[in-house]
Amino acid sequence: MQAGFAMVCAGAVQTKNVRNTVLKNLLDGCGAALGFYCFGYAFSYGGSTFGGPTTFIGDTNFFLMNINENFFLSPTVDAMAFWFFQFAFSATAATIVAGTLAERCQMGAYLMYSILLTGLIYPVVVHAVWSPNGIFAATNINKLFGSGAIDFSGCGTIHMTGGITGLVATIILGPRRGRFFDDRGVPLKSPGVIVQHSVALQALGTLILWFGWYGFNSGSTLMITIPSRSETAARCVVASSLGSATGAISSLLLNFFLTERQTGEGIFDLTMALNGALSGLVSITAGCAVIEPWVAIVAGFIGGINYVFGSRLLIRWRLDDAVDAIPVHFCNGVWGLIVVGLLANPTHVYDLYRSTHAGWIYSWSQGSADGRLLAANLVYMLFVAGWVSVTMFPFFFALNYLGWFRSDPLEEIIGLDVSYHGAEAIMSDENDDPYRQYVEQKALKRRKRVNPSKQSTIIGGRVYKPDIEMLDDVPISVEGSKNHY
Amino acid sequence: MQAGFAMVCAGAVQTKNVRNTVLKNLLDGCGAALGFYCFGYAFSYGGSTFGGPTTFIGDTNFFLMNINENFFLSPTVDAMAFWFFQFAFSATAATIVAGTLAERCQMGAYLMYSILLTGLIYPVVVHAVWSPNGIFAATNINKLFGSGAIDFSGCGTIHMTGGITGLVATIILGPRRGRFFDDRGVPLKSPGVIVQHSVALQALGTLILWFGWYGFNSGSTLMITIPSRSETAARCVVASSLGSATGAISSLLLNFFLTERQTGEGIFDLTMALNGALSGLVSITAGCAVIEPWVAIVAGFIGGINYVFGSRLLIRWRLDDAVDAIPVHFCNGVWGLIVVGLLANPTHVYDLYRSTHAGWIYSWSQGSADGRLLAANLVYMLFVAGWVSVTMFPFFFALNYLGWFRSDPLEEIIGLDVSYHGAEAIMSDENDDPYRQYVEQKALKRRKRVNPSKQSTIIGGRVYKPDIEMLDDVPISVEGSKNHY
Amino acid sequence: MQAGFAMVCAGAVQTKNVRNTVLKNLLDGCGAALGFYCFGYAFSYGGSTFGGPTTFIGDTNFFLMNINENFFLSPTVDAMAFWFFQFAFSATAATIVAGTLAERCQMGAYLMYSILLTGLIYPVVVHAVWSPNGIFAATNINKLFGSGAIDFSGCGTIHMTGGITGLVATIILGPRRGRFFDDRGVPLKSPGVIVQHSVALQALGTLILWFGWYGFNSGSTLMITIPSRSETAARCVVASSLGSATGAISSLLLNFFLTERQTGEGIFDLTMALNGALSGLVSITAGCAVIEPWVAIVAGFIGGINYVFGSRLLIRWRLDDAVDAIPVHFCNGVWGLIVVGLLANPTHVYDLYRSTHAGWIYSWSQGSADGRLLAANLVYMLFVAGWVSVTMFPFFFALNYLGWFRSDPLEEIIGLDVSYHGAEAIMSDENDDPYRQYVEQKALKRRKRVNPSKQSTIIGGRVYKPDIEMLDDVPISVEGSKNHY
Repeated sequence: MQAGFAMVCAGAVQTKNVRNTVLKNLLDGCGAALGFYCFGYAFSYGGSTFGGPTTFIGDTNFFLMNINENFFLSPTVDAMAFWFFQFAFSATAATIVAGTLAERCQMGAYLMYSILLTGLIYPVVVHAVWSPNGIFAATNINKLFGSGAIDFSGCGTIHMTGGITGLVATIILGPRRGRFFDDRGVPLKSPGVIVQHSVALQALGTLILWFGWYGFNSGSTLMITIPSRSETAARCVVASSLGSATGAISSLLLNFFLTERQTGEGIFDLTMALNGALSGLVSITAGCAVIEPWVAIVAGFIGGINYVFGSRLLIRWRLDDAVDAIPVHFCNGVWGLIVVGLLANPTHVYDLYRSTHAGWIYSWSQGSADGRLLAANLVYMLFVAGWVSVTMFPFFFALNYLGWFRSDPLEEIIGLDVSYHGAEAIMSDENDDPYRQYVEQKALKRRKRVNPSKQSTIIGGRVYKPDIEMLDDVPISVEGSKNHY
Repeated sequence: MQAGFAMVCAGAVQTKNVRNTVLKNLLDGCGAALGFYCFGYAFSYGGSTFGGPTTFIGDTNFFLMNINENFFLSPTVDAMAFWFFQFAFSATAATIVAGTLAERCQMGAYLMYSILLTGLIYPVVVHAVWSPNGIFAATNINKLFGSGAIDFSGCGTIHMTGGITGLVATIILGPRRGRFFDDRGVPLKSPGVIVQHSVALQALGTLILWFGWYGFNSGSTLMITIPSRSETAARCVVASSLGSATGAISSLLLNFFLTERQTGEGIFDLTMALNGALSGLVSITAGCAVIEPWVAIVAGFIGGINYVFGSRLLIRWRLDDAVDAIPVHFCNGVWGLIVVGLLANPTHVYDLYRSTHAGWIYSWSQGSADGRLLAANLVYMLFVAGWVSVTMFPFFFALNYLGWFRSDPLEEIIGLDVSYHGAEAIMSDENDDPYRQYVEQKALKRRKRVNPSKQSTIIGGRVYKPDIEMLDDVPISVEGSKNHY
Repeated sequence: MQAGFAMVCAGAVQTKNVRNTVLKNLLDGCGAALGFYCFGYAFSYGGSTFGGPTTFIGDTNFFLMNINENFFLSPTVDAMAFWFFQFAFSATAATIVAGTLAERCQMGAYLMYSILLTGLIYPVVVHAVWSPNGIFAATNINKLFGSGAIDFSGCGTIHMTGGITGLVATIILGPRRGRFFDDRGVPLKSPGVIVQHSVALQALGTLILWFGWYGFNSGSTLMITIPSRSETAARCVVASSLGSATGAISSLLLNFFLTERQTGEGIFDLTMALNGALSGLVSITAGCAVIEPWVAIVAGFIGGINYVFGSRLLIRWRLDDAVDAIPVHFCNGVWGLIVVGLLANPTHVYDLYRSTHAGWIYSWSQGSADGRLLAANLVYMLFVAGWVSVTMFPFFFALNYLGWFRSDPLEEIIGLDVSYHGAEAIMSDENDDPYRQYVEQKALKRRKRVNPSKQSTIIGGRVYKPDIEMLDDVPISVEGSKNHY
């Protein structure tokens, strides 16, 4: 999955930021491996047992110690294999945010957020719904509302968690330079065009993700203790195929229709179709094991529509999401949980969870109106939204206040590959103004650091001054960028 | 597999058409999912039973309804899993054509052809040879010639079907502008060089396909009801490895030899090696379960040679195939079926199909001359060629007659990414003639559409005229492009 | 895995050599398939039996004949599936070298080396440690030092073999033009910057390799005859995840620290992180089945450090490795074998190999000092190093002596894609000096070859002379390039 996300992001950003973006995706995987090894797994599943009391968080198996003893899925599933599968999930949740924040975030901020998310925020959500001791779990013996929430492959845990984190972060971080405001902070009439690196790589990444989703959705049957696991896995892959197909088609056509109305000429937008396919996949993620194929078609179709409108809403609100991760993952994470509440099939729900409370529409069509599953899913959704935003907002706010979040404006113009990763500037003429200033500033920094004691006075008197002047020359102020949210 | 084909095509086309090509590959997958959900599966396998009567087409399980009841492979295989596997096959058949038609076909035409192929044309072929009720099926109790045709992983169903469709389509569609004819329709002495987007992506796509083939060939053991399935699957992956290796080597060397003879200097052509590997894979697709490893080497070697000559023949006939899909899939689809007829191993044939009629060469080497399997495969091959060309030729002819098939000549020059997908023109100077004309023409269209009532008279009098003049300026006429086949 | 290596190399080399590099990677796979089919498998495992006498090399099953009879892993594993898995390993060993030699090696040399390696050199190492009749094998009944060497997934067989071959080859082949010496052979003060084709593709390749490693490491449980194979496989994937994560982080941070000390400004180098991840994976390859998760973290961390220092050492010694394959695979192949000797867990070693000799540190912490496993692994390591360098050094030396190894200097400047693969020159101005000379030289060659009898006298008198003059014009002599090692 990391390969998929890395390619989606590498394809979607500007050429000058490719290294930076790819490195963040790589570090996501690494951070998730360590974070989930040390704390994440313990908080998620430590000490979980079927029939045990409801808890807020796990408390044993830190550093995978004694992970095989009293493992709640033994002997069907090996604990180490389970860890690996869960780690892949946590890396996915973390990496969703990478795309949103691309091209304007400092490396350090990224590392800090990444560890916090996979080490604490995400595991709490996972515990709540996937551990048999979780408050919302349908596998808990004391099911919420007698039903428990059903989030089979992680609409809430992965997609909503990642999506909300991205949303909070982009609100605080502000848009990329030139996206919604010009150099002086004046709002642009229409969003600035950002030339992306390679649409072919973005498509490749989306197709890798699509493929990886089959593994995630069918692999989630691990967590169910029933004999007919292969039948459930088959239902999952069928739902995934149909959901992504209809998502791609609906967002492609809706966008064609909307552009046709607005400009007189419709556009078949590849990016819309790619993100539409992902939207369709997110839409069926929560329910793939308990829905019929035709429900996957309906869910994917609406998921594609959600995406198009969500994406346009973000632009209207001047919230900058470099790869449209928020409408794909947040909007459809919410929608996916609603799909389960409305259309989960009674037979499958009973087979998998021994619960008699299925989708509201099924119940309604039979004359009753059993909305317990829907209610449980909605409460669970509110819990995820609340927990993630309440914890992440202060965190990002503090980062921003300390000046650790947003890149230096000059660095953003030059491109993060040059400023952090030692790449050569690509398109810059050497006499180009921002580039010349950038080089001088860097040269100055180096001199200061390499021999701070000797040159400090000289710098203070003569060299430091032009540095400040240089910054003044740049027609953008740091405050300007901060105020744009 | 879609990822593989998408990358092969994205790498092989011109940069100005990358979005268009990738989108078509994506829509293939989506169209196949829906088409195969609604009708395709039903026509292919609906109501199939071992020992049932021979039928032309399936007739139940539309929209996957009641797919689990009386499924002919139960309880060994889950019906949903089987659908998923078959859907992946159908998407592959459809996407083969995308490459051939790249860079000059309208979006609408593509969508229509794609639905027709996966919804009807392909399922009929599948039913004929893979359903136990198919007329050519070796699993039918009334085997054709007492043997039935053996097409294990789809030389006929997938590769010939895709290849013939591509052949028919390119005959009607005509070559890309500047490929074989200059702007005035005068034949060029040597084919025009078309600069491809990225050879690295093409190589990546080929290697992904190679990898995916292992899944297809070994997964096809699903359709066999024998205990030692893993042994058969192992034979398939060995054959795939050896076939692709020898295919790549033979076409690389043959092309080196031919270029050396023609120009005095041999070229190791990467594209030849890549397509040679695919050719080797196609060559063993029909027989991978019933042939020995050494047969795979022979088949792959000749497959690579077939490809090189096939590709040159197409160029001589001025048939334009943007990714050489026709020589790879059609020529070697035919060859793969012949390989089975000649060299299928008696032991394996009996184990898998309970048939005593194996490859003709085996029988001949033992003094008899039992050509029943070869005959069955040849008849099946003729059936596929006949069915597909008889149905697709009128379809494409009608599309072309209605003007829905070929892109506008101006759009083709500018690149389909600009005309359909809202991309910025890449290499065009703004004062470039075709580009300026294109922009004016578009602006005109928009004005007309956005406010048709108000401006229609003015346009009729003044603005519409220069539009026609502009088209006259372009030194290419639509008729010109149509006459080139 | 070929897809991964191909993309790593395609991304890392200069644009002018992409085709050449990708083709070499493709041919690796093809050559390995044939070489391993004909001889490799026979030399590696032919006639192996548990409890049989110790031999230097296998001697039956050439061309996979009778491979199923008396197969030593029957009936647990199918012989064909085993061949396929082993072939994938051999292709990996061969392809490691491709990166090191990129951009300056002749095609013919590459083909010859590739067949030699997979057909003979590599199989001897495999037989020594993986066949139950191998002299170092822990599955041999006469275990070396009573313990035998443990190389679970191939630190010695694959990574050391590939790494040493690359090291020997680059010593003889010399660095790329402009890497360490200027055009006249004068050493440069700092290594010349080589602009790489696409960092995104390199990242993609690394992530594909990472993913493929899971298959290799968990698949290696095939070769163990114990019931709880899935538990072992799970341990392997956990070790792989943690090792690669810490490897990426340690090399990223170490490089940041070192560049900060040297230039006053730290660089987060993406290439370092990518190769660090691979280094971490190599570090746990030998031991993944017998180490605890925390050992994987330690091993990966040190592996990342090894890589950074190894890479810097190579540059100091002016040994040119285009993709840093030597520090990744050779240095950490050695380190991975030491990890096993120090930290193999007694329980796992006994479960898998029925040996009571585990890692030296475990034994030391319990008061004894049982270094038999460490000793066996060190002797095995020396055997690999000796065998590969003793056989490959004369081979490459002879190739070089015959002038079949290094590309023509003019061809190297123009780029191998133009000279071997018929590509158009990319960045060259037509009046560019080396390019013009190159074209003239080629034209001359063609004239000579196409019609050698007619023009030979004229060429001898008039045309051949300017050819020599042209070469003199080029400010580089072939001798110059040879003397640089």
